[in-house]
Amino acid sequence: MKKNRLSEEEYVNGILHGDRVTLSRAITLVESSLPSDQQLAEKVMERVLPFSGKSIRIGVTGVPGVGKSTFIESFGKLLVEKGFKLAVLAIDPSSQKSQGSILGDKTRMENLASDKRAYIRPSPAGAALGGVSAKTREAMLLCEAAGFNVILIETVGVGQSEIAVKGMVDFFLLLMLAGAGDELQGIKKGIIEMCDALVINKADQENVEAAKRAKKEYSNALHLFQAKENGWFPKVMICSGLMNIGLEEIWEMIEQYVLKMKDNGFFERNRQEQRINWMHEHIRFLLESKIYQSETIKKKIQDILPEIKNGNYSAIAKARELVDLFLQKQKGE
Amino acid sequence: MKKNRLSEEEYVNGILHGDRVTLSRAITLVESSLPSDQQLAEKVMERVLPFSGKSIRIGVTGVPGVGKSTFIESFGKLLVEKGFKLAVLAIDPSSQKSQGSILGDKTRMENLASDKRAYIRPSPAGAALGGVSAKTREAMLLCEAAGFNVILIETVGVGQSEIAVKGMVDFFLLLMLAGAGDELQGIKKGIIEMCDALVINKADQENVEAAKRAKKEYSNALHLFQAKENGWFPKVMICSGLMNIGLEEIWEMIEQYVLKMKDNGFFERNRQEQRINWMHEHIRFLLESKIYQSETIKKKIQDILPEIKNGNYSAIAKARELVDLFLQKQKGE
Repeated sequence: MKKNRLSEEEYVNGILHGDRVTLSRAITLVESSLPSDQQLAEKVMERVLPFSGKSIRIGVTGVPGVGKSTFIESFGKLLVEKGFKLAVLAIDPSSQKSQGSILGDKTRMENLASDKRAYIRPSPAGAALGGVSAKTREAMLLCEAAGFNVILIETVGVGQSEIAVKGMVDFFLLLMLAGAGDELQGIKKGIIEMCDALVINKADQENVEAAKRAKKEYSNALHLFQAKENGWFPKVMICSGLMNIGLEEIWEMIEQYVLKMKDNGFFERNRQEQRINWMHEHIRFLLESKIYQSETIKKKIQDILPEIKNGNYSAIAKARELVDLFLQKQKGE
Repeated sequence: MKKNRLSEEEYVNGILHGDRVTLSRAITLVESSLPSDQQLAEKVMERVLPFSGKSIRIGVTGVPGVGKSTFIESFGKLLVEKGFKLAVLAIDPSSQKSQGSILGDKTRMENLASDKRAYIRPSPAGAALGGVSAKTREAMLLCEAAGFNVILIETVGVGQSEIAVKGMVDFFLLLMLAGAGDELQGIKKGIIEMCDALVINKADQENVEAAKRAKKEYSNALHLFQAKENGWFPKVMICSGLMNIGLEEIWEMIEQYVLKMKDNGFFERNRQEQRINWMHEHIRFLLESKIYQSETIKKKIQDILPEIKNGNYSAIAKARELVDLFLQKQKGE
């Protein structure tokens, strides 16, 4: 990374001029774990931060097979045709262990990827399961500084990734299918409670009736939840990413949401809370980086590792010793 | 917590004598976020640690609706009848936001819970989505020290909880259903790759044929993965927790696995790696606890919070200042 990196000025200027190559390289810089890269990344972030924030940030989630890529491709196309500058932070569908996909994923979002009005950034391979990297928030802010005014963040499925994404977006959209049997299978209640809209995808051809029924059932189920503090009742809609059905309505709903939330103050309040959480996340990130970058600690860990392995030393006692040693060492460094 | 807590001796003696009330209180102590509780918890852990480790640790996962509770209840019953002492670390099905369950969960595992040969510990309410608390590993070790020799750790669904649990168990069992349509829907590939056995539940009555077909399909799908480094090919089986079908075979398989892995050295090697990861987790936990327990930092955060909120201060710059201040302060403390 070091050799290929640009200067602070080059990153900042490139980003603020909307240069995609520089933007991509800046995101790579932000994702780097090299201390020198991290320092430079922080400086760049600092300088472009005042130019960020002017987008609508949308999280899109759903289990594998729900048609996320197709939805994002069609929905994204609609947005760029409306004149928006769209950035998609997409998960990489290849799994951690095997290289390929057992479902035989083809190249995703080919159409949108070749559209000059959109920018697609896959999350780095090897990122946490679910696809949200520790640096997705920074990537989003960089995209905003580069002039993108709608950001879609894609996650797969049902877990902590969604909590992370919910903590950085304005609107959280859950894609589902009209399924036989238990309508809620595969998606945790906690995720459904988080969503601002539940959209039943693949509502085309012979699936339309099932989708309408599912819409009704979900609407009933969602009514059992308490109203959200922002006064928004999660909407249930149907669409087909493949056949371009219902996408216009989804965008209208999101626009309504944004208007209403800006009006009642929730939009800004939510972003305020997110900024605070971001600070806490970065505190954790920095502490962890620092202890593992300390030469004293690295050496000490090498020394005790065999004894930890065979259980002669207790993992928690040694962890405490290492932390104490690290904190003591700060005197000299 | 403070007032109700026991002395170090009382915790240690109670646990080593297999006293359930003390065990439960010790787990509560371990889960406490009070610094004084944490210190005591660490001492207790230290002392009982040499008595831990002598169990088979099994992770059980699957999406909501797959029948985890019923499976664990029947499987657990089988194990206690074989003479094992069983501890179940179970997730709490109530969601984070709404108090109840929209699916109307009844009290779970009633049968097993009333069986004196088993010990069931629900994870604390408000734990991370997925139900693995930061202290599940410690709870497991305490159960072992109290004499339990089979530990089942239940998680729901498909995300980072499963990675966490995989990092602390010997055997990872994934429950699935024979479903219409995409057989892999709702479970991420990464999870399937992690499992040592994929068990199709609810294989009873009119579902038997579908379960057999699903077994075949999953077996074919799993063959596309590379062999695991430990030489084990994940088994695909069918069972019915409700009707007590196939459970004996599952236990036999797990015993075979354990024998084979002890034989080829993987069992111990895996536990060695887990100990190292535990140390790293505890390092992160301690660092985070310490910075937020610092009075200087608490006060400073109060001071800057308004400016972070409204975006006048950058969250990452302030995070760095706070971390630097915290590390500097270590001189004096």
